[in-house]
Amino acid sequence: MRKRALPLSRVYGLLEPGPVVLLATSARGRPNVMPVSWHTMLEFEPPLVGCVVSDRNHSFAALSALRECTLNVPGVELAREVVRCGNASGREVDKFAAFGLTPVPASRVRPPLVAECWANLECRVVDTRLVPRYGLFVLEVVKAWIDPSRRRRRRTIHHLGRGRFMVAGREFRLASGKK
Amino acid sequence: MRKRALPLSRVYGLLEPGPVVLLATSARGRPNVMPVSWHTMLEFEPPLVGCVVSDRNHSFAALSALRECTLNVPGVELAREVVRCGNASGREVDKFAAFGLTPVPASRVRPPLVAECWANLECRVVDTRLVPRYGLFVLEVVKAWIDPSRRRRRRTIHHLGRGRFMVAGREFRLASGKK
Repeated sequence: MRKRALPLSRVYGLLEPGPVVLLATSARGRPNVMPVSWHTMLEFEPPLVGCVVSDRNHSFAALSALRECTLNVPGVELAREVVRCGNASGREVDKFAAFGLTPVPASRVRPPLVAECWANLECRVVDTRLVPRYGLFVLEVVKAWIDPSRRRRRRTIHHLGRGRFMVAGREFRLASGKK
Repeated sequence: MRKRALPLSRVYGLLEPGPVVLLATSARGRPNVMPVSWHTMLEFEPPLVGCVVSDRNHSFAALSALRECTLNVPGVELAREVVRCGNASGREVDKFAAFGLTPVPASRVRPPLVAECWANLECRVVDTRLVPRYGLFVLEVVKAWIDPSRRRRRRTIHHLGRGRFMVAGREFRLASGKK
């Protein structure tokens, strides 16, 4: 990987635009990965992320048990792999092997990073109060990585439902006094 | 408004892609509006949305007191107004009047809809457990409106931080077995 550490104060800029991310977990040393669109930033620094994982998902047990995961931001070039990950279950398939994704060891947590994603966040579960009602895990990002060549050409994908996606492309800037 | 009611089962498709939305509140009959990017779907139907409003925001008191708001989805043509709403405070400015936005009565809640936005969601606060720690309000969408001409050309804006935005444009479809 030609990725660099991203300061934790900059993490919100990766998730605030609302891209589909790949959430990677690990159970008994076996990694799994699922796409997640239901996430929001909750705090700038340390970066906190609310992320919904339903108890109908295979990842739910692994995330609940290990209390660690990674969030990985794919570009549009990975759209087919992302959809395949969403249509398969880790119960039956080793998704990394089946869909050509490369697990790379993380530095601070046990689940792997997804090498093909252009940004990777290592996360710990810090609050589970809303898990029983909504499946909402509060994650703290403890380490972040970015492919610096993608800072200005993210080409993230945004799920509209029922297999429809948008690519976020053209960027613009308007003077903002806020973060 | 040439808007139509949108079935509540379709609401998630508006917010799941992560656009900036305008959150409108009302206090003593005076409406206010602020841009919010920190939101996530929590349930499909009835649609539940987790939405962060900091207690540093003027809207916090109105939302906490009235327990109702609207979420309004702007297209890129409203980007300047959205940024102006973010850079001003309802403490000092009537943002609707100052930035040329039109408040329209909602059908089920007291805060107004923003006429210029292409989709509008009427919401009630249903869970405040995570408000003290994270400012996270759980909203139930009780009525939804859409400009049908925008279903296929949303042109939503997605905040990258520090005044940088992306426009989500090109759409594509990949067979998905999921919602």
